[in-house]
Amino acid sequence: MKPTRVLIAPNAFKHSLDATAVALAIQEGLQKSTLDCVCKCFPVGDGGDGTGALIIQKHKGTLVSVQVSDPFDRKITSLFGLVNEGDTAIIEMANASGIQLVKPEELNPLRATSFGTGELIKAALDKGVKKFVLAIGGSATVDGGTGILRALGIRFLDAANNELTIPERLTALTRIDLSNLDQRILACDITILCDVENTLLGDEGSAAVFGPQKGATPNGVKKLDASLATFAQVARQQTGIDMTIVRHGGAAGGVAAGLHTFLNARLVNGIDFFLEFTGFSEVLANADLVITGEGSIDEQTLHGKGPFGVAYQAKQKNLPVIGLAGKIPLEQNAKLNQYFDVLLAVGNGPTDMTTALGCTEQNLVRTAWQLGNLLAMNSR
Amino acid sequence: MKPTRVLIAPNAFKHSLDATAVALAIQEGLQKSTLDCVCKCFPVGDGGDGTGALIIQKHKGTLVSVQVSDPFDRKITSLFGLVNEGDTAIIEMANASGIQLVKPEELNPLRATSFGTGELIKAALDKGVKKFVLAIGGSATVDGGTGILRALGIRFLDAANNELTIPERLTALTRIDLSNLDQRILACDITILCDVENTLLGDEGSAAVFGPQKGATPNGVKKLDASLATFAQVARQQTGIDMTIVRHGGAAGGVAAGLHTFLNARLVNGIDFFLEFTGFSEVLANADLVITGEGSIDEQTLHGKGPFGVAYQAKQKNLPVIGLAGKIPLEQNAKLNQYFDVLLAVGNGPTDMTTALGCTEQNLVRTAWQLGNLLAMNSR
Repeated sequence: MKPTRVLIAPNAFKHSLDATAVALAIQEGLQKSTLDCVCKCFPVGDGGDGTGALIIQKHKGTLVSVQVSDPFDRKITSLFGLVNEGDTAIIEMANASGIQLVKPEELNPLRATSFGTGELIKAALDKGVKKFVLAIGGSATVDGGTGILRALGIRFLDAANNELTIPERLTALTRIDLSNLDQRILACDITILCDVENTLLGDEGSAAVFGPQKGATPNGVKKLDASLATFAQVARQQTGIDMTIVRHGGAAGGVAAGLHTFLNARLVNGIDFFLEFTGFSEVLANADLVITGEGSIDEQTLHGKGPFGVAYQAKQKNLPVIGLAGKIPLEQNAKLNQYFDVLLAVGNGPTDMTTALGCTEQNLVRTAWQLGNLLAMNSR
Repeated sequence: MKPTRVLIAPNAFKHSLDATAVALAIQEGLQKSTLDCVCKCFPVGDGGDGTGALIIQKHKGTLVSVQVSDPFDRKITSLFGLVNEGDTAIIEMANASGIQLVKPEELNPLRATSFGTGELIKAALDKGVKKFVLAIGGSATVDGGTGILRALGIRFLDAANNELTIPERLTALTRIDLSNLDQRILACDITILCDVENTLLGDEGSAAVFGPQKGATPNGVKKLDASLATFAQVARQQTGIDMTIVRHGGAAGGVAAGLHTFLNARLVNGIDFFLEFTGFSEVLANADLVITGEGSIDEQTLHGKGPFGVAYQAKQKNLPVIGLAGKIPLEQNAKLNQYFDVLLAVGNGPTDMTTALGCTEQNLVRTAWQLGNLLAMNSR
């Protein structure tokens, strides 16, 4: 019998392991098992933190380093990637405006801005790029992308023509001055990889849902929602575009809505674009079995998360799919079952979240090992 | 292809599900899966709470109810089983002297006695039985079996010839009066099913290791150890038998050591006896695959616990063995791997122990379902 060709295509396990480390742990377990298999690691990203790095790596792109402002206007050295012979810039928002750059006690989305990401874009324009791919996961900001837009020349003004530079001041916004916008950006094709479908405002909006994890208090969430509402209202008066109804618009604190409205950015499902852009289907053509995974897999996963994108494509080719996660639903779930033939939690017993996060690698190795032994069992 | 013949032979999941319920949950999951299989449920016991009931059920025995004393001398209705046409009594210590009969706040091994279990034995003698099988798991007592022996006529006396009836008084023991022992018991064959190998005294003895879960404080543990030491010393003077070196002697608060010394009881590994007595090998002969399990599976399991006994016999016949547990070692374990081809924790994510215990059934159904899907995968 020929060895089983296993395609290992997991997402990152958030707060624990990046997608590459997850894939390697699964591969290690399978290789230690009794299964006769050939493994291909193909870590994926759905727009979340680390997605840009994976794209650059898969395209064998080059990295460009740039001095930019962090979310609180301190100078840092950041980077972006160039692929397709310098034609396309891959920009990871987390590298300039990310939570990872800020101490937990510093987090404050009322003041944090995406300006640094705009500086990365500007630097890429200077390199002559024509296309942008933005991975916007892991941002520390809820500024509607106004920081990025400011870096590109747009000015946000109150009634007295004072420039507004932080999100909590946006409630005073009366006019958006586009006269100094860097015109090169309007000639570019901008694609934003979104890993959530939330719209900009309200209970399911970017302030309410993602504000708290960026440090917003309940009162801060209300202020941010009001700021984004004012931004949307003024933007609509000037552009005719209603950014509050844009699907994915709430992604990355409203960056998706802001860049869609002012730069005509295309908002796409992150994982679908990723798989297309990185040639997943060719890899899939040589697989007998697909293993994917994410920190948590549940019905939310079916709303366009990485493992769903992988499983969906695998099912188009009738391949069996195994999902591994730190957390899965207690009861077997028929909707998930359509895409995941097998769904296993990798933990080794009752434990608190912090301990579990610290054991992800061992849990993945061991579970993949057992999985391999099981798959080998019937073919003995 | 013929359906896979799956033998489901789990232990109980302590504090959660009895062995029969575990087996049924696993069967339910497999039957819902895509695996073409025929399941045979064969729940097992290794001497722990519930073992007696399984033996009686497998032998289609009859139940006899008897009024006895609970661990604190209150009258309760208890029962024992008769199998082999009334020749053999199956006695479950937990039914007369068990933790299950006592409120948590009442637990007090300094005063709790195994007298009621002795009354069950006496009632069985009245029925004319010649053989006894004692499952001694789940007891609330650390009395060295003195309660059982008292019920059968032995008297434990201090220097002033006062009878000692509770374990904390045994430090005053100077003489053991055998003159009134019910002589019928000496003609009987007594087998005690032990699920631990601990000896009677010291750091690994019955007071130190099992006293706390029966309600002993650290000081109580010391007192109980001293009581059992005095018991052993006087017993040795009168019988020449050193009960402190008997393997399994510490089982059930020293019941194993006491009955071995005074009633010539045979102490055996619970699961090996169980499997032999219930005809496991015939069932095994018709299996392609064995699934076993217990609340926790680790290296301790290899010291004669239920899943080990099952796996050991399965391996003698070269059958693949899958172990399911609430908790397993974080790292793959080579020793366990010799007996368990696959070891899976059934939990669905990080959670506290109480929640996990309450979800055992759903976790087993779901995990067995996934297991079946996996086993079916390769045969597609």
